[in-house]
This record gives sequence, structure tokens and C-alpha cells, in this order.
Amino acid sequence: MRPLRNTVPFDEALARTLGAATPIERTEPAPLGTANGRVLAEDIIAQGDVPAFDRAAMDGFAVRAADTADASAGAPKTLRCVDAIYTGQAPARAIAAGECAEIATGAPMPPGADAVVMVEETDRADGSAARPLVRIMKAVQERQNVGRRGTDLRQGETVLRRGELLTPSRVGACAAAGRAAIQVYARPIVAIVSTGSEVVAPGQPLGPAQVHDVNGSTLAGVVSMYGGMARILSSVGDDLPALRSTLAEGVRSADILVLSGGSSVGEKDLVLDVVREAGDVLFHGIAVKPGKPTALARVGATVVLAMPGNPASCLSNAYLLLVPMLRKMARLPAHIPRAVTVPLAARIASTAGRHQFYTVRLVDGAAVPAFKSSGDITSMSHADGYVEVPAHIAAVEAGERVRVVLF
Amino acid sequence: MRPLRNTVPFDEALARTLGAATPIERTEPAPLGTANGRVLAEDIIAQGDVPAFDRAAMDGFAVRAADTADASAGAPKTLRCVDAIYTGQAPARAIAAGECAEIATGAPMPPGADAVVMVEETDRADGSAARPLVRIMKAVQERQNVGRRGTDLRQGETVLRRGELLTPSRVGACAAAGRAAIQVYARPIVAIVSTGSEVVAPGQPLGPAQVHDVNGSTLAGVVSMYGGMARILSSVGDDLPALRSTLAEGVRSADILVLSGGSSVGEKDLVLDVVREAGDVLFHGIAVKPGKPTALARVGATVVLAMPGNPASCLSNAYLLLVPMLRKMARLPAHIPRAVTVPLAARIASTAGRHQFYTVRLVDGAAVPAFKSSGDITSMSHADGYVEVPAHIAAVEAGERVRVVLF
Repeated sequence: MRPLRNTVPFDEALARTLGAATPIERTEPAPLGTANGRVLAEDIIAQGDVPAFDRAAMDGFAVRAADTADASAGAPKTLRCVDAIYTGQAPARAIAAGECAEIATGAPMPPGADAVVMVEETDRADGSAARPLVRIMKAVQERQNVGRRGTDLRQGETVLRRGELLTPSRVGACAAAGRAAIQVYARPIVAIVSTGSEVVAPGQPLGPAQVHDVNGSTLAGVVSMYGGMARILSSVGDDLPALRSTLAEGVRSADILVLSGGSSVGEKDLVLDVVREAGDVLFHGIAVKPGKPTALARVGATVVLAMPGNPASCLSNAYLLLVPMLRKMARLPAHIPRAVTVPLAARIASTAGRHQFYTVRLVDGAAVPAFKSSGDITSMSHADGYVEVPAHIAAVEAGERVRVVLF
Repeated sequence: MRPLRNTVPFDEALARTLGAATPIERTEPAPLGTANGRVLAEDIIAQGDVPAFDRAAMDGFAVRAADTADASAGAPKTLRCVDAIYTGQAPARAIAAGECAEIATGAPMPPGADAVVMVEETDRADGSAARPLVRIMKAVQERQNVGRRGTDLRQGETVLRRGELLTPSRVGACAAAGRAAIQVYARPIVAIVSTGSEVVAPGQPLGPAQVHDVNGSTLAGVVSMYGGMARILSSVGDDLPALRSTLAEGVRSADILVLSGGSSVGEKDLVLDVVREAGDVLFHGIAVKPGKPTALARVGATVVLAMPGNPASCLSNAYLLLVPMLRKMARLPAHIPRAVTVPLAARIASTAGRHQFYTVRLVDGAAVPAFKSSGDITSMSHADGYVEVPAHIAAVEAGERVRVVLF
């Protein structure tokens, strides 16, 4: 129960949190089918021209463009069809003047042909079944409806660079470049530990004075949603040796260790004491509400975030501090939450000197305050987003337009 | 090479696609640690009051509020501290008049006490080590700094309802309600098959006239990103028995089967022929560019989407048709893409009568056309989003402001 008298402003806490995060260097292979959303850890070089041959871009007839000059529906040109070229097969023969070949989209152009007439611009004419005549009803230019070798990718071309975020189309570009798997940056591992002798794992029977652990579940959701690998460790009571051992396990196995629960007893703040003896505390206490009793530390190569035990306070700081840190560490672009600006439905009186985040519901286009107390998970689960009230503002009146950041 | 003369307008294609999608009924259990983003398949009822006891909301001293009346820093009230109450423990004794108990946030209130004075508003005074005196420097009201039993949840209360999307805070509310795992709707299974004799699996050596499969990777990325379970099946050549067997496998194992590749050869459109003999074709051909040769069918309980083989066309229709259908089937809220409105950097001339989607890059606050041809995956992978040009618009001039829907 040491009073928390020295707090840092919220912006300073965020800056120190981001400053403590180092982009991850570990890499791992990812098959293309699961690579979407990952971050490339290598440059991708095209292993060949894509496509590797000139090909038809339409179903139709491969022709010599010169043979179609001035063709129209009223005055078609008649060509003799000498081949049918399916996809996946090399053409059997070349096209000479006055000839054409039926061709499917994606099939290789036969030698001699330099354009494709769409099937919709042609008509069957008389002729033998083996070598039918085809009426061409529209002139085509050289290269028309032909996908030229190398137009998508050139052999040796750098298709994507290390550090780029993989989207579906970029994963496809890796496939086109000849790859089946690619090297990506590992997702940061985030160990999650709830502390406090009152905490019992979800679903377990409660003794007197006990509560179910909520923070393990909420933090795991936030971590997996924003690009990390969540590992929920067993909760730990208010016991120094147990806390030391859990801290060591978290630091050994994770890039980020998130502890929740104050574990303050008498003169002791057990979690902070254990963290302090193992590493460097970068701040302890933020001028923010909810979430004031939050600490940041570096223990070895691991960043330790010690959060309040109250579920709403813990989750609020998870969005405000953990997510930006996680995104930076994962080399992912900063998360930009959606926001709407609407009138406030009821006055909010704000605590002087503390930057406040108030949960709200959106009802009929207005922001209705939804917070109960910082201990209540339902003040978050029933909310659509939050309104931010800076430290120097004492109240926001009903009817004022506020920016609601949506969850 | 049957010409595709009858197309449906894009809006009609989307309406039929959504009409074919039935919200999934299969459910499965999810442990809370992985439940974020899933959709609840049951109502969640609180199994007990949360919290199950009155508890301290602050570190400080549990008091009888009446004993603190008129207390101030200049005229503190002195109380005798008779207990220290840690979290997780039932209080050892009751508080009588003139007494208080040191108490940690989250610890149960002792009988007799009705408020908590924050540690910051107190000071140690003289007294024996075992029963020290504490100076109270601020009056508190009854219930002040006390979290009352049942304020977060009441036993029997419906916490969340079937059909709600699980966010981190809602997963936390399930934990508070006493649950370790919950029943959620299964993710729709989307089987993905690339067709065409030219298609070779990513990373395999290419023969003449062959190309690497790109659509399997891009579609798998889209499916997993928007709430489905992607299963990439082996690609299949232009061969009726093989296509029939693959269709049967996809229909047996998946809620949605996405085929890509036209497989048009001579008079045959093999994919469509196989689909037509097995089920009902709901449309074939959309007045849209890229992506015109797209078909929708129902085969048994499975929705079949037959997409163009060109990677950019296929991916475009995956965003425009597959994603809305998948979200509805998964019971997830419709995906609302982000969009920006910026000037167009260069004129776009549009094909008459076809609703067109043009990929663009954002460069210096302007939309720069990025499309090459519909066969090129790089026209998508280098793009930031797309501009939509309705069927009746022939051109959009440079400098006009356009809405860019971001990928």
C-alpha cells in the first residue's frame, strides 16, 4: 500500500512503452496458404518471367493481325482454322497467312500468330470438320488480346521487399514468383500472467473471497487480434518466491510479459518489487483513468507491462499501450482504430489532472456513458468504444460533440 | 468457347450471392483463450454474483464511514487498525466503532465496515506494532470505494446472447460469468480448387505452357482473413472425370467451394458443365470488369463460386462477392472497408456497359491507376485499393475526386 504519488502523463507513458519495444529479429518459414497478415523477412525475387510465354488473354482465335485488316460484321475475313490450342500444351504448329488456331485463355500463342480475336467477334463458316473455316468480324491490332511473356513479372525482378506486410495479393505475387513458402518475421510471444491470491482460473469453483480470472482471457484476445502469440501462464498468488519464478519463466519464454494485478499488501507492492529486483522500471503510475497503477519495465530482453488487476483498467491499457508496442515489435503497421463523432447523451464530470477514457455505447446516434467502475468487465463488454477527456478538462456537457474511438 | 452473352448487373450478382448463403448452424466449443472474434452460439448466464462479495475498490483502510465524519488533513480522525485483509482471504474479524482494517484492492470488506479510505488520505500514527493507530485525513461516505457484491453481474443475469460477436471484453465477461469454454458457431469451410491444365502448384518446376497457381494462395488469404477456414485442394486439369470428382469432394467437405479457372476448350466450358449437371446455376457472367466470367451455383448444401482463372479478376471477385457471402454464412457483421476520397492522377477510360473496378496506388494524396491486365497479380499486389466506375460512366477525368476503397 505504498501510495502512488509520482505518475507520468499518458503521452509520456506511451512514448516510453514504444521506446522499449524492439522490432523482432526472429524469422520462420510460412507456407503461402497461411502467410497472409505476416511480415516478409526476405526480398522476393521472380525466379522466371511471368508468364513464361506469350499467351491468349481471351478465348478466341489466334491470328496474324494483318489478316484481319478491315474485317467487320458486314465484311468478315475468312480464315482456315488449323489447330486447337488448349491450356498447358505447347502449340503443335505455326500459323501461316490465312490461317488461325482456336485458342483458350491462358494457352500459349502459336508461332506466327500475333493477336487473338475474341470468340464473340467470330463465327463458324463452312469447311471440313478437321480444318473448318472461321469468319473474323472485327480487325485486331498486333498484340491485341495477347498477354506477353514477362508482363506480370520479369525474371530477377524484386517482387516484394523485406518488411512488407503480406496481403492476399502479395501472397499471390510470391506464388507467381515461384515460391511455395517464404520467410516471415515471427510473431512476438506475449506471456500473460494474472497475479493475486483471489484469482482462480476460469470455470473453477470459487472459494470465499475469490474471483475468476478475467484478464487472461481479455489479454489473450487482444494479443492474438493484433499480431502476437498469446501464452496464458498459470496465475500466481501474492507470494514472492512464486512471483519470482513466474517472472523468470515469462522472461525466458516471451518477448512481452504482461502481468495483471496489483498484489499490494501492507507496505509491499510484490509484483513491482520482484520486477525491480530483476530489471529496470521505466515508469510506475500513469496520470490516466482507468489504469493509473500501471508499470513498465525491461527485464533482460523482455518488456514487462504490469497492469492493474481490475478488468476494465487492464483492458483499457491493453488497447492504449500493449497494442502499439505489440504492433511495433511485430513490424506491423500501427493500428488505426475507427472513430465516429457524435453528441454526448449525458454530462461527464472528469477527474482533475488525469487523462480519462470513458466507455460509451452508441444509441440513436449519441454517445451514452457506459462505465460503471474500473473493476467491472461489463462496463467494457457493453460498450461500443470510448471517449477521451484530456487531463485539463473538468467536464464534457451533454450535447457536446465527442469523438468515439470504436473497439 | 461458348460466348458469354447474358450477364447480370453487378448488384444483381451480389444479391443472388447473398441470397444463396445460409448462416451456419454447426457449433463447436471454444476455450476462452481462443474465442475472440468467434460468434456465440449460446446465451451466457452469470453463474453467480460478480463479485460474490463486497470488496475494496482501493488500497487503504476499511472503516465505518460514520467514524470519519468531518475528518480533514488539519483535523484527522484517529482509528485503531485491528486487522490486515489480503486478497483471497475471508476477514478474520469485524470492525467495531473506532476501529479500521488495512485492506488491499479486491479484498473482501470485513463485517461492520462500510467504506474504504484511500491509503493516500491516511497516515500512520503512534500505537503498538500489533494494533497501530491510523490518522484518517478525509471523510468518506457509506459505500465509498467499495465494490458491492453483484455490481458487475447478478446471478442468473443474461450476460451475452447467442449470435453476438466475441470481442476481448465479451470473452472476459464469459470468464466472469463462470465459464472456461463456450459454444460458438463453426467457421464456414471454404474449399479452394484451381482448375486448368496449365496450373502447377506453387514452387513446383514449370513445364512449357505452364504457370504457377496463384489463386489458391490469394483465396486462402481472403478466406482466413474474413472468418472462414480455407482448405486448398489439389488443382485439377481440363478433364471431365477429374473435375466431377473434385466437385464431389468439395461439395462433401465444404460450405463454400471456390473454383477458379475457366477451363473453356472448344465448345465446352468444362467447369460450368460439371457444375450444371450436379446442381443449379444461379448466374453465369457478370457485367463487371474485371471478373466477368464468374458463375454462382448451388450443389447440394454447398454454394459454388466459379471464378475466372486470371489472378486479379479472381481476387477482385473474392473481395466483392466471396467476402460478403462468407461474412453472412459465418454470422459475422458485414465487412466495411476503409475508403478515402482523393483526386485521380490520370484519366480512366471505362468499358461501356460494364461496372468496373480499377486498382490504384495512393501517391502524394492522389489515386494513380495501377492496373495492368486482369491476368496480372502485380496489378493487385502493388495497389492500395480500387476505384469503382459504374456501367453508365464512360470515363473519369484526371483531377476528379474519386472514392478509393482500400484493401
